[in-house]
Amino acid sequence: MLRITLDVCASALLVLGVLASDNGLARVPQMGWDNWNAFGCDVSEDLLLGTAEKIVQLGLQDVGYHYVILDDCWSAGRDDNDTLVADSEKFPNGMAHVADRMHDLGLGFGMYSSAGAMTCARYAGSLGFEEKDAQTFASWGVDYLKYDNCYNEGQTGDPLTTFNRYKIMADALNATGRPILYGMCNWGEDSPWKWAQTIANSWRMSGDIFDTYNHEDVRCPCSGDEGINCALPGFHCSMANILNKVAPFVDKGNPGAWNDLDMLEIGNGGMTDTEYKLHFTMWSAIKSPLIMGNDIRSMDAPSLSILLHAPILALSQDPDSTPAYRRWRHRNAPAHGAGPNETQLWTQSLSGGDRAIFLLNLGDENATLSTSLADIFFDSGGARSDEAQMNWDVFDLWANRMSNEVAGQVVEANSTRGVNITSTYFNATEMSWADGLAANDSRLIGQWVGQMTAGMDWEVEVEPHGAMAYRLRSVGGTSRKRDEL
Amino acid sequence: MLRITLDVCASALLVLGVLASDNGLARVPQMGWDNWNAFGCDVSEDLLLGTAEKIVQLGLQDVGYHYVILDDCWSAGRDDNDTLVADSEKFPNGMAHVADRMHDLGLGFGMYSSAGAMTCARYAGSLGFEEKDAQTFASWGVDYLKYDNCYNEGQTGDPLTTFNRYKIMADALNATGRPILYGMCNWGEDSPWKWAQTIANSWRMSGDIFDTYNHEDVRCPCSGDEGINCALPGFHCSMANILNKVAPFVDKGNPGAWNDLDMLEIGNGGMTDTEYKLHFTMWSAIKSPLIMGNDIRSMDAPSLSILLHAPILALSQDPDSTPAYRRWRHRNAPAHGAGPNETQLWTQSLSGGDRAIFLLNLGDENATLSTSLADIFFDSGGARSDEAQMNWDVFDLWANRMSNEVAGQVVEANSTRGVNITSTYFNATEMSWADGLAANDSRLIGQWVGQMTAGMDWEVEVEPHGAMAYRLRSVGGTSRKRDEL
Amino acid sequence: MLRITLDVCASALLVLGVLASDNGLARVPQMGWDNWNAFGCDVSEDLLLGTAEKIVQLGLQDVGYHYVILDDCWSAGRDDNDTLVADSEKFPNGMAHVADRMHDLGLGFGMYSSAGAMTCARYAGSLGFEEKDAQTFASWGVDYLKYDNCYNEGQTGDPLTTFNRYKIMADALNATGRPILYGMCNWGEDSPWKWAQTIANSWRMSGDIFDTYNHEDVRCPCSGDEGINCALPGFHCSMANILNKVAPFVDKGNPGAWNDLDMLEIGNGGMTDTEYKLHFTMWSAIKSPLIMGNDIRSMDAPSLSILLHAPILALSQDPDSTPAYRRWRHRNAPAHGAGPNETQLWTQSLSGGDRAIFLLNLGDENATLSTSLADIFFDSGGARSDEAQMNWDVFDLWANRMSNEVAGQVVEANSTRGVNITSTYFNATEMSWADGLAANDSRLIGQWVGQMTAGMDWEVEVEPHGAMAYRLRSVGGTSRKRDEL
Amino acid sequence: MLRITLDVCASALLVLGVLASDNGLARVPQMGWDNWNAFGCDVSEDLLLGTAEKIVQLGLQDVGYHYVILDDCWSAGRDDNDTLVADSEKFPNGMAHVADRMHDLGLGFGMYSSAGAMTCARYAGSLGFEEKDAQTFASWGVDYLKYDNCYNEGQTGDPLTTFNRYKIMADALNATGRPILYGMCNWGEDSPWKWAQTIANSWRMSGDIFDTYNHEDVRCPCSGDEGINCALPGFHCSMANILNKVAPFVDKGNPGAWNDLDMLEIGNGGMTDTEYKLHFTMWSAIKSPLIMGNDIRSMDAPSLSILLHAPILALSQDPDSTPAYRRWRHRNAPAHGAGPNETQLWTQSLSGGDRAIFLLNLGDENATLSTSLADIFFDSGGARSDEAQMNWDVFDLWANRMSNEVAGQVVEANSTRGVNITSTYFNATEMSWADGLAANDSRLIGQWVGQMTAGMDWEVEVEPHGAMAYRLRSVGGTSRKRDEL
Repeated sequence: MLRITLDVCASALLVLGVLASDNGLARVPQMGWDNWNAFGCDVSEDLLLGTAEKIVQLGLQDVGYHYVILDDCWSAGRDDNDTLVADSEKFPNGMAHVADRMHDLGLGFGMYSSAGAMTCARYAGSLGFEEKDAQTFASWGVDYLKYDNCYNEGQTGDPLTTFNRYKIMADALNATGRPILYGMCNWGEDSPWKWAQTIANSWRMSGDIFDTYNHEDVRCPCSGDEGINCALPGFHCSMANILNKVAPFVDKGNPGAWNDLDMLEIGNGGMTDTEYKLHFTMWSAIKSPLIMGNDIRSMDAPSLSILLHAPILALSQDPDSTPAYRRWRHRNAPAHGAGPNETQLWTQSLSGGDRAIFLLNLGDENATLSTSLADIFFDSGGARSDEAQMNWDVFDLWANRMSNEVAGQVVEANSTRGVNITSTYFNATEMSWADGLAANDSRLIGQWVGQMTAGMDWEVEVEPHGAMAYRLRSVGGTSRKRDEL
Repeated sequence: MLRITLDVCASALLVLGVLASDNGLARVPQMGWDNWNAFGCDVSEDLLLGTAEKIVQLGLQDVGYHYVILDDCWSAGRDDNDTLVADSEKFPNGMAHVADRMHDLGLGFGMYSSAGAMTCARYAGSLGFEEKDAQTFASWGVDYLKYDNCYNEGQTGDPLTTFNRYKIMADALNATGRPILYGMCNWGEDSPWKWAQTIANSWRMSGDIFDTYNHEDVRCPCSGDEGINCALPGFHCSMANILNKVAPFVDKGNPGAWNDLDMLEIGNGGMTDTEYKLHFTMWSAIKSPLIMGNDIRSMDAPSLSILLHAPILALSQDPDSTPAYRRWRHRNAPAHGAGPNETQLWTQSLSGGDRAIFLLNLGDENATLSTSLADIFFDSGGARSDEAQMNWDVFDLWANRMSNEVAGQVVEANSTRGVNITSTYFNATEMSWADGLAANDSRLIGQWVGQMTAGMDWEVEVEPHGAMAYRLRSVGGTSRKRDEL
Repeated sequence: MLRITLDVCASALLVLGVLASDNGLARVPQMGWDNWNAFGCDVSEDLLLGTAEKIVQLGLQDVGYHYVILDDCWSAGRDDNDTLVADSEKFPNGMAHVADRMHDLGLGFGMYSSAGAMTCARYAGSLGFEEKDAQTFASWGVDYLKYDNCYNEGQTGDPLTTFNRYKIMADALNATGRPILYGMCNWGEDSPWKWAQTIANSWRMSGDIFDTYNHEDVRCPCSGDEGINCALPGFHCSMANILNKVAPFVDKGNPGAWNDLDMLEIGNGGMTDTEYKLHFTMWSAIKSPLIMGNDIRSMDAPSLSILLHAPILALSQDPDSTPAYRRWRHRNAPAHGAGPNETQLWTQSLSGGDRAIFLLNLGDENATLSTSLADIFFDSGGARSDEAQMNWDVFDLWANRMSNEVAGQVVEANSTRGVNITSTYFNATEMSWADGLAANDSRLIGQWVGQMTAGMDWEVEVEPHGAMAYRLRSVGGTSRKRDEL
Repeated sequence: MLRITLDVCASALLVLGVLASDNGLARVPQMGWDNWNAFGCDVSEDLLLGTAEKIVQLGLQDVGYHYVILDDCWSAGRDDNDTLVADSEKFPNGMAHVADRMHDLGLGFGMYSSAGAMTCARYAGSLGFEEKDAQTFASWGVDYLKYDNCYNEGQTGDPLTTFNRYKIMADALNATGRPILYGMCNWGEDSPWKWAQTIANSWRMSGDIFDTYNHEDVRCPCSGDEGINCALPGFHCSMANILNKVAPFVDKGNPGAWNDLDMLEIGNGGMTDTEYKLHFTMWSAIKSPLIMGNDIRSMDAPSLSILLHAPILALSQDPDSTPAYRRWRHRNAPAHGAGPNETQLWTQSLSGGDRAIFLLNLGDENATLSTSLADIFFDSGGARSDEAQMNWDVFDLWANRMSNEVAGQVVEANSTRGVNITSTYFNATEMSWADGLAANDSRLIGQWVGQMTAGMDWEVEVEPHGAMAYRLRSVGGTSRKRDEL
């Protein structure tokens, strides 16, 4: 069951053609914005276009946020030909107009439906209308479909029933000839991480996120540990709940097919800056889609400086990185009700033989965390491994965060131009992430803070609900990458 | 997966037409009476008609108890045409006669069958005879079908198999042209809260209730916490067991489609008055069907004053309220074997921006419970929320309960007329619940007991096995309602 | 989901005709003998006929042990017509000859196959050959089929798949026109207690029993508490494991369709006399089939006096009794490794308004157990119930056990005649159990040991691994029976 | 559900013909080598042929290692006829050439595919191409197929769906006419131990092994105890994890159809010599396939002396032995993080009435373990059993292990010839394991270390993470074997 990171060669590419969802999209996790977390059903052309413009102006487009996704509640039902019709009050110029405007801005346009009789807000669903609706979306110029799971007429409960239900839409989208990124949203029911790779570009693996660090809510009844077999995904799942839920199957994400940890809550106000940094770090490192969920039009400086932060985004958009995995979890952190009593080490394999590590303190007091090369490279043999014998430069991935002052200038100027943001701002329109990484662009690497050598303990104090994130780079040349599959 | 409380507008109504069970019934939870809890198989025309008359006379009809439901054991099998035949000893004038009498009284008539080869008491079941039996029920003038799950020939164990089995009867009932409220009773097997909304008006979510507060019984083997995936629903489930079982999926109830927590036990003698008040409060707040289960003909005063209590019924029959949900549960209450060691806060969104809260003390000693606006409005942002900045009048929903003396007079007089019951008795025949709520009818609001303001703790002592129930109303105008979906 | 004990009346009998397995058999649990527990594959005509004769001679036939069942390993495969052929070395005169000899003795003849490609011992199975094999068995004069679950080609894992697989044989047996008792043996997989009643006369509800009181064995991986959803039934299940496993669903047994707790181990030597008495008591009270599993030809006196004990058999063979259920379990008994730390109260409703109770001490030291009428009649309302106000005579069901001396005389004489065994020996050939119970035959009632009255505690010391079993009879006339459904 | 060890007689052989996978192979567990554990995707003709030669030279072939198995990553996709094509860089002479070379050496050649759209490394899979691919493999001269589970298009989640998917390849292989050993690799999903015996020669029962003794890894999320119903098999499963996972269903292995505990890690460096001995001992005793996973071309002496050790291999290759089972587990061993706090007794029935026992100390300190004949022969009746009354010679199965010096000479000489290795080296090419056992060849028996008699405790100190393994042989003649079925 091991997975391999294939070198991209002719024969492999040929083979990859058997993917049912071979639309060529999401070779790295998709980025964008969706209105749901901040606005719910309160949607309109104004909201979408106003947000889209801001995404361009604030420099978010240029770091990769590409899709503007309209979620539920846009519909006025079906016409006499069973064709979906947009709500004419909310979208007076129709959907094609919205798509055109997005395309004019260089953005992609995403829409929403459900693999059920109704959407979750009880508008017309696509079950039984897959081909027609895919054609409609394609005719409007849609580039992305978020496909939900409500009112599915009992077509759930085992992998094959669910696979078949979602495959119908996958085939319908492919049949349009238009490349449409396909984001499954069945909340992890029936273990999509086992089977969705050949039909979808991403699949939600849990119930809906809620803008809270670790609040228990009976409506998200499975704790993280039970996430591999949750009888009720629920909603109001905390960020930490989702993080622990995905840990057993991070490896199921592959280029073109990703675990979706749900949309970002950064900027919505329910977590602290420290917690939002942890949220952004781990969503990037696990290679979840990165879909902003806040009100972009009233962006605040700290949120912007997180969302633009290149050394973290580089973990996600690196074409050769694999999803971070959890090396260990210790239940040794003092917790007073907010945080779980856990510290964790995660590690991620990056392009060029680099390695990222993440020391998480989920507890409620400062904690000193420690690791070593033998610890980090356990999969390769630990102390026996080649990697543990080498010396590694250590770069702090958050040290160079854009200051609130600078971020505030961008917000105020409504533009990145004329503001000195070069230290960690990376314009991916000018140079791709792949090229930037290949060129060792300093904005992607973080700030050098020391060196790790064989046998040495790396100790660091981590604040409560926080994470220290480092990139390790072998001294004196790139080490040979020997990922496990 | 979030659900929205739709504003009732044209386009939404159009969309709702896709509901398979679009019989227009149960827009608020159905109310009525069923013979099973008190009489089991001991059924007869006399019992039904005698009870029906009492329901009218005691004023129960006028608060909304509409359906008189005949449960199992009425059948004499099938005739030569495979048509169901009523037992001629128990029902000497046939079923149509019973239905006619109910209709004469302005009541609805409910019947029972099972989606199996036999009913639970091993009379003829409807599996394989759905169309014929639906036609028979319609021809008799039946208004409601309780549809059980016994002897189902192995057609269970996954959502699709069960959905299809119950959909056959849904379609058969719709095909009769007669609006027949469809109450699924498959005891929560295969998670009907996930899929029954498009075929049924309600679905039982647990094994059968037993007239006990919190007695453990091996025959109801799942504790509340395991209710989301119970391998054996069983029976003899206590009231507290069911209350905790439904907590993870209360949000699945919607207008026309409700979680059914099983019939009421009020008046059957197995619980204290305090426990019955808790039972009635939470069944109303969670928007379960409210089906009385006691011997109406020998109604006692305390039971009557519970069953008629308008400030609680208004939580259920409010067309804009959503099911209450559990905000928190603390395992901090002393318990000596009867109660679980739990205190809980539940909260419910009501029409007009009002909010209900329920402070439950499930333990065995008096407890002081405390909450605050930040606590109550956590979903909206807690202390950050608009709601937490406002001032709220607090109304005690049980303070104005009809006295035993007055209730006794109703029982003795066999009528609500001539008895002074106006303080909390609300005649919904004269004015609908919706109109009464819109008019701020004082009988629905409870008794003012104070005001909650930002930052303030609301503390109250709650008796063991009891609940304090409050309505909160913003001071100086109705707050904008911003429910989550 | 409640079940009713139907009064046998015309309409009810009509209704019961819908049972697919309406072969009229097993209206009370079947009794007999099967070679497996003592002999495994070591079968032969000699073994069966020698045992059959002993069953007659030792008086076992006359208390109801009727079926002599040949288990696995009798086959030589299929002939050119795919007809099963008996092993000619083990059965030189063929199977019809064995059946004839059984019938000559007034006994029934049972055989074995598996709903799989092979039997468990890897002889030819009946999957795909159901009609042919049923015809073959009928042509041989077979009266009983034990139908196993090995090598079932993956046709398992959900109720419908398993139901359908076993229904094919049920239909095939019915089609022969010969009444053949159908004992499903699928080890409780897919919860047969939910669906087998309409196709089979009994169904095994656990993995195979092993001759041990409470020994944990990893090969029977589900503890009793997890028995409602056991992923691997296994084998080597202890007696106490099975007893606790069946507790949640005892009520699923009904006339003609019983929970099968597997064959008796009495006489096989792995348990003490006290433990075997507990085994026999609870298997009878729960209304499991009672299939002896020891070497009848070398019967010892204590085993015989258990197997013949009428006051306990009367609990099983009473046509109006319902399966005993567990009222409570307390984890308060000292256990040193052998017994679980449990005491339990079980109670059973009997014909004529009598009630049986069972006080179990599963721990490893003597324990004083206590109960009361309010405790026993909790289901009827506890202290509020009519039953708790009445006075009850209490009869000890084991006090009059046949002495070892007398039982030894029967064994030695190879006959019950000429031995004075009248005190608890009941000849059901002369008078049926139903008639004996209706006539209040003193041999069925036990020995009077006192009276229980309202409010009184009944205390008794119970030895480790033992049970006190009592029949309660209301003083001054039979109480009205008000079973729950 | 009990299984019998059949005496091989005519009628039984006839019956065994119903096995769908009756290819006559793997009557004892298959032995060989697979490249995955040491080399992953880094495969080539050179690797396979170089290894094959070493297997012959080091004497591994002569103890039974027969199959050289090429794992994933050999493919260049399908040609225009949809026929699989080997990667011409890795295998410049094609696959048939490799197979021919293997056959020239007297070895068997194994290959790999997946019952999915892609292999785990995302090469072309065989789902939908079963017949074509089986014909291709047969045409190349393939003798063994490892058939994986990746990208299975949702065809998983219940036994029947998975059975059918794997049966298609079983039938396709049988249809080629070439005997091809069929090793299912679906990681234990859907409980293959329940149903795979009639289609496959072995089935993996867990996620992938990792070269570690007992390291917890979230990517192998089921602990051993939950292995009977694991929702996510995962990978990175430790040796102890797998050992405990298989314990509940060891009995499901039978001649021709074995539980596969995954490939050996001996020689890969992640465990100590003591741990590797435990690994090899238990994999042999449980009758798992024994597939070496190290780099044979750089074999070290201690690894070689384990892999060649005849007294342990004799447990596996004994045609009459049954899989060892766990008699008990005590959680009484001090553990400091590496080992579980467990001691265990396993026991195995061997040909000729011999018995093997295994005393495991999984904890982290030396422990004194104790057993007795009553303990060992509990299944036969414990102290009551015939076996517990007998005297038994005790042979230590590891006492005569080849020295590092001798093993080093073999490695250096690249040959077993000329090195004095006779004490425990058994050449199975010269004399079969069955004949050697029948002849009581001293190299298979171990070293006599004492005698066990009735009532006596056998005490031994066992090192941490170690096992003492003994063969017991009754004194004065072979005891009658009375295995349970």
